[in-house]
Amino acid sequence: MTNSDPQEWSNRGVDLFLNLLPGEHSRGLRVRIEDGLRDAIRGGRLVRGTRLPPTRALARDLGVARRTVVEAYSQLAAEGWIAGRRGSGTVVAFGATPPIDAGSIRERQRVRWRFDLRPGRPDPSSFPRQEWLRAVRQALTNAPDEAFGVGDPAGELALRAELAAYLNRARGLTIGASDLLISTGFTQGLGLVARALATIDRRRRITIEEPSMPHHRDVIREAGHELALVRVDRGGADVEQLEQAGEAAAVVVTPNRQHPTGVALSSGRRARLLEWARATGAYVVEDDYDGEFRYEGRPIGPLQGLDPRHVVYAGTASKTLAPGIRLGWLAMPEPLRAALTREKELADWHTSALEQLAFAELLRSGMYDRHIRKMRLRYRRRRDALLHAIVDADLGVEVMGTAAGLNLLILLPDAETEDRVLAATRAAGVGAAA
Amino acid sequence: MTNSDPQEWSNRGVDLFLNLLPGEHSRGLRVRIEDGLRDAIRGGRLVRGTRLPPTRALARDLGVARRTVVEAYSQLAAEGWIAGRRGSGTVVAFGATPPIDAGSIRERQRVRWRFDLRPGRPDPSSFPRQEWLRAVRQALTNAPDEAFGVGDPAGELALRAELAAYLNRARGLTIGASDLLISTGFTQGLGLVARALATIDRRRRITIEEPSMPHHRDVIREAGHELALVRVDRGGADVEQLEQAGEAAAVVVTPNRQHPTGVALSSGRRARLLEWARATGAYVVEDDYDGEFRYEGRPIGPLQGLDPRHVVYAGTASKTLAPGIRLGWLAMPEPLRAALTREKELADWHTSALEQLAFAELLRSGMYDRHIRKMRLRYRRRRDALLHAIVDADLGVEVMGTAAGLNLLILLPDAETEDRVLAATRAAGVGAAA
Repeated sequence: MTNSDPQEWSNRGVDLFLNLLPGEHSRGLRVRIEDGLRDAIRGGRLVRGTRLPPTRALARDLGVARRTVVEAYSQLAAEGWIAGRRGSGTVVAFGATPPIDAGSIRERQRVRWRFDLRPGRPDPSSFPRQEWLRAVRQALTNAPDEAFGVGDPAGELALRAELAAYLNRARGLTIGASDLLISTGFTQGLGLVARALATIDRRRRITIEEPSMPHHRDVIREAGHELALVRVDRGGADVEQLEQAGEAAAVVVTPNRQHPTGVALSSGRRARLLEWARATGAYVVEDDYDGEFRYEGRPIGPLQGLDPRHVVYAGTASKTLAPGIRLGWLAMPEPLRAALTREKELADWHTSALEQLAFAELLRSGMYDRHIRKMRLRYRRRRDALLHAIVDADLGVEVMGTAAGLNLLILLPDAETEDRVLAATRAAGVGAAA
Repeated sequence: MTNSDPQEWSNRGVDLFLNLLPGEHSRGLRVRIEDGLRDAIRGGRLVRGTRLPPTRALARDLGVARRTVVEAYSQLAAEGWIAGRRGSGTVVAFGATPPIDAGSIRERQRVRWRFDLRPGRPDPSSFPRQEWLRAVRQALTNAPDEAFGVGDPAGELALRAELAAYLNRARGLTIGASDLLISTGFTQGLGLVARALATIDRRRRITIEEPSMPHHRDVIREAGHELALVRVDRGGADVEQLEQAGEAAAVVVTPNRQHPTGVALSSGRRARLLEWARATGAYVVEDDYDGEFRYEGRPIGPLQGLDPRHVVYAGTASKTLAPGIRLGWLAMPEPLRAALTREKELADWHTSALEQLAFAELLRSGMYDRHIRKMRLRYRRRRDALLHAIVDADLGVEVMGTAAGLNLLILLPDAETEDRVLAATRAAGVGAAA
């Protein structure tokens, strides 16, 4: 019975959906198979080059004699619709080449900058491909079968334990594995916080820094909150404005390096911010988006360490690894844990277990530390080169936010100058933002 | 200058956050380093076994003389807080062993069934680890640098093109790459549809089958919709009830195999459902959650093919590959495209590019087809064994939904019998659901 050898059958077959027009049983099966294939090819569903199943597999799938399928294929081949190719079986020989309208996709504007200096964009060529592959292999080798089932919404325990130890050591947090929730990045994390607060807090307002990323504001609004703004000056967010901004369920800040100005929140304001949170029962969302990249001066400790019950600490692998790998994390205050985990479950059950386990392996092996230190050096050299060029050019401009991070802010005298500078950078193939 | 050789530096270092108490400059640097390390170890932030950076790397990071760090390490070693280990550098030698409270995580109930027959649970041991690793390697080798940057919210073009061709050929859809949005699974996809409709349709009601998954109902409610229900009988969802259920922006159905009853939507009701959608300007969400697993009879064509402008087709890799890999897709009617893509952007920018590219490779190479055919055969054998056992036992029960899919429904005479049967299966180590 070689015909029904399941191995052979499963290794050679491709799936094909055929509309055999049920109800018209009077017509011969062979004719109906021919019509079904012809319609699918003519309608563009099966495009030129599509591999068809071997006659034996299709006959089995349709529950007909193999001879019926062989005859149908012969007829279609004679008509030029399909063709047998030695070695690669039978393929569709007629019709449009590209799958219907792949070409009509408006590709996202992917300008190729010679140097991409747009804020918050890590160098995508720096993604550690070899190390990631090694980590995926390790994860696939070691993962128990259960890892491929429906997992814990808060994340894989193996990753949460490694990540907690890393964040405690390298970023100065004081958390355990159970405090962490693994998200698909800061965007999702912020949405989870905003929606969780909407379920447990009647205050429907969240305060955010001005300036800050428009995308983050949209995420907050999407969750049903009103936005309030606090101005940023050279000491970071003006915490005194918080009281005037009215009641809020939370404030979103970038205390370690304000985005995009690059200033750090002053120590006096740090204390005052936490006082405000305790007094009003609100939460501080600490967006530590690129705290790994500090080039000079002393690293600044996270707010989370000062008051774990009122601070949601949010980190991401978007800057350290790549935005294309969607991994982020929240260190959750105990009172928010249940609500945040529930929101994650409603958002997408949990983050891909395999990517979580690969990231855990990267942390465990020390490869993540090594990669960050390598990138920190590389980015520092780039910053130095840029600063020297600006000084050499004697432009008389002020540059902010140079001690750390992936962007710097150049203060220009007026809007006209800004337009001229942006035009010049664009012409030179350098990506920059106003 | 071997001291500053960046390669050596970056390869040996681990990052360490030290709180040096700014402002107390009167105390010696050495004492402040000692105090910072002692506090971190005593407070549980640095647990026993944590590797410390080499003196040279830490001195460089802190901007102090190496000698200062060497002396601080010596003092702490003398006090027993840290210890030098030949080959592995300096490690923390004192304090709690497990990272703070990893043990306190309430692990999700992971009962190990001898046979897990709970509905909709694919066999997690069947995940094609080798094939997936090969696909990841291929994706990592071929991906352009841009793939690691911020990507298209609708998904990687390479995957959308492969997937469109696959769905057209194997599932009977008629779509192009630009019709597809890649999500992190059906849960996210349903949430995107519900939220997109909430932004463009004033009707805040979505209809769903009764019975259906409670989780899906929660996702719809979370997006701000009221729920309406349509009863399911032997012809599938009772479409006539749709008119009585009141105005709705959409109806969510499982027409190819109703979950959990396993019945298919009758052809008369299919036509009527689409008529209702056209007449009211509502959308049909077609949840094709396990359409790949049909064991007998003719495959049923998707509703999407009958009316692409009014049907959102939703598929998932959760049943074919594993729930642990979070990948799903929506075939979007043209009028919903912009709103759905925007919702994805607000949810998490886009799905992990690397997993998308690996899945594209699985499709391109034919490995996905082969895996599905192998699993179809395996599940069919299991179904046969179960059906034979039920018939042999002569229980006088009726079994529904046997032609396809990953579950079957056994109708028991009364609630008492059901309780007895569930107790018996549990005792035998067989997972089942009421």
